[in-house]
Amino acid sequence: MSGDSMNALILKAEQWILPELNSIFDSEESEDIMVKAGQYSLFAGGKRLRPLIMMLTSAMMNLPQGLDSDVKYFAATLEMLHTYSLIHDDLPGLDDDDLRRGKPTCHKVYGEGIAILAGDMLLNKAMERLLSICEKKPGYIYTASAMAENAGVSGMLGGQSIDLASEGKEITMDLLVKLQEKKTGAFIEAAVVTPYYLSKNMTRKEALEDENAKDLRDLASHIGLAFQIKDDILDVTSDSSVLGKSTGKDARDSKATFVTLLGLGGAKEKLGEEIVMIKEILAKLSDKGFDTNDYLTLTDFLVNRDR
Amino acid sequence: MSGDSMNALILKAEQWILPELNSIFDSEESEDIMVKAGQYSLFAGGKRLRPLIMMLTSAMMNLPQGLDSDVKYFAATLEMLHTYSLIHDDLPGLDDDDLRRGKPTCHKVYGEGIAILAGDMLLNKAMERLLSICEKKPGYIYTASAMAENAGVSGMLGGQSIDLASEGKEITMDLLVKLQEKKTGAFIEAAVVTPYYLSKNMTRKEALEDENAKDLRDLASHIGLAFQIKDDILDVTSDSSVLGKSTGKDARDSKATFVTLLGLGGAKEKLGEEIVMIKEILAKLSDKGFDTNDYLTLTDFLVNRDR
Repeated sequence: MSGDSMNALILKAEQWILPELNSIFDSEESEDIMVKAGQYSLFAGGKRLRPLIMMLTSAMMNLPQGLDSDVKYFAATLEMLHTYSLIHDDLPGLDDDDLRRGKPTCHKVYGEGIAILAGDMLLNKAMERLLSICEKKPGYIYTASAMAENAGVSGMLGGQSIDLASEGKEITMDLLVKLQEKKTGAFIEAAVVTPYYLSKNMTRKEALEDENAKDLRDLASHIGLAFQIKDDILDVTSDSSVLGKSTGKDARDSKATFVTLLGLGGAKEKLGEEIVMIKEILAKLSDKGFDTNDYLTLTDFLVNRDR
Repeated sequence: MSGDSMNALILKAEQWILPELNSIFDSEESEDIMVKAGQYSLFAGGKRLRPLIMMLTSAMMNLPQGLDSDVKYFAATLEMLHTYSLIHDDLPGLDDDDLRRGKPTCHKVYGEGIAILAGDMLLNKAMERLLSICEKKPGYIYTASAMAENAGVSGMLGGQSIDLASEGKEITMDLLVKLQEKKTGAFIEAAVVTPYYLSKNMTRKEALEDENAKDLRDLASHIGLAFQIKDDILDVTSDSSVLGKSTGKDARDSKATFVTLLGLGGAKEKLGEEIVMIKEILAKLSDKGFDTNDYLTLTDFLVNRDR
């Protein structure tokens, strides 16, 4: 797989994950309006960045082919968690957004009540999947547990809460970094580490101590920040027709971002620093014999993407 | 424990579960406004019916004392799931309720955005707990999995969705029973069966085939219906100051209930039928040597309660 362009990687990731996403709900469940609403958002497109990253880790760490279907299962589960977080974040009580991934948001199409339930349903179903696979493969329990934690108070939800509590307030760079490491970074971490954890049937203790696992978490942390800084830059420089979601909304909501704290130039500079860090970690992994080519392609995309 | 009055059982259940509920969040987490909002609803009182039922099953099935702390852990987890479902159900986009358990609803106190996140957080944390205990005790995986399913499309959320989709429409008694078996019944089932499943480290296959497990699920199904029929009756006969939540709201929302479908007399008759079924199953369990006295006390309460 090594050496593909980013567009080729995105296409490959989409083809890789779509059949798994299609298999989540049986035909009876799919008649439920709440499930339909969840599927609407799950299939509204998007870059499938988290599944793509899982593919990249699998290739980089040279994981056995036989692991592919389980990695895909966890990738679809993470995509469900990510999608539920977007559905709820777009609600009038939170960000109040009309446009997501170039389409009307879930509550705009299905109404607020169904959108709340659709988000709950995707979250619940994701957790059912994490538990259900462990009935067959108890060695996956810690990996599943870690993904659930990445979605919780110590991860995505914790970031959302700080974000909401900080609206209209001046916050420090430290708090902004903490907020983003949780809000965006936690799911990126799950994407980067999950295939490797699965391949080792890792326990909590092993995951904490394993040197490669530490490198991967470090890599994830910088990818997450780079991704978010670029997001903040695009919010002021891009057009909603290109981006597929509303732009200028950070200013509208008086949100602290890397651009509001550092200015556009400062944000670009910080993005550059994160990219240097990512490349250093990838060089270290390459020295260990891992093939980092596709991760380098992703790294360039983090800087150059326009959506 | 056998032979207590219902008030004594409610008090005992509260004393039994409160320390566990207090231990869920560490002090750092509790500084988060989203966590505070979740705790507000978790400690807003209520009958603690589901933990109480778990206590009853533990006593009836004569489960080993050593199991008590794990039963309590699962009971608190179920109470979190129940509480999140109430927080979201009370939101303006769904039932739009101002009063719950005699206090202002979560969004009335903390605002809509935080209330959405607080519900998500309780759901997520409940699932983290289900996964985390399985890291230490993999024998619990199916029990955890079953509780997660009781909260999902095949359980509570599936019922919520049918409920919302049916508003203002005429529905059949069959659909109303299906709706309520999911919406209320699924969590009652989790409460009734969980201690027994835990005591046997049950797998999915064993739970399906075990005769006592079948009896317990049957018992749960009739308790759930009796509870809901009485709820519908109280909605038209009781006063919100006694009930601790808004009354008359089923009529306001054009909701189909056992009272709107059968009339008040018909609903009371159906409640009586469910009670007969419950007593038959309890008699069967008593014949097997299980002590059903406290479950009989609960059965009387299902008929006579005024809140």
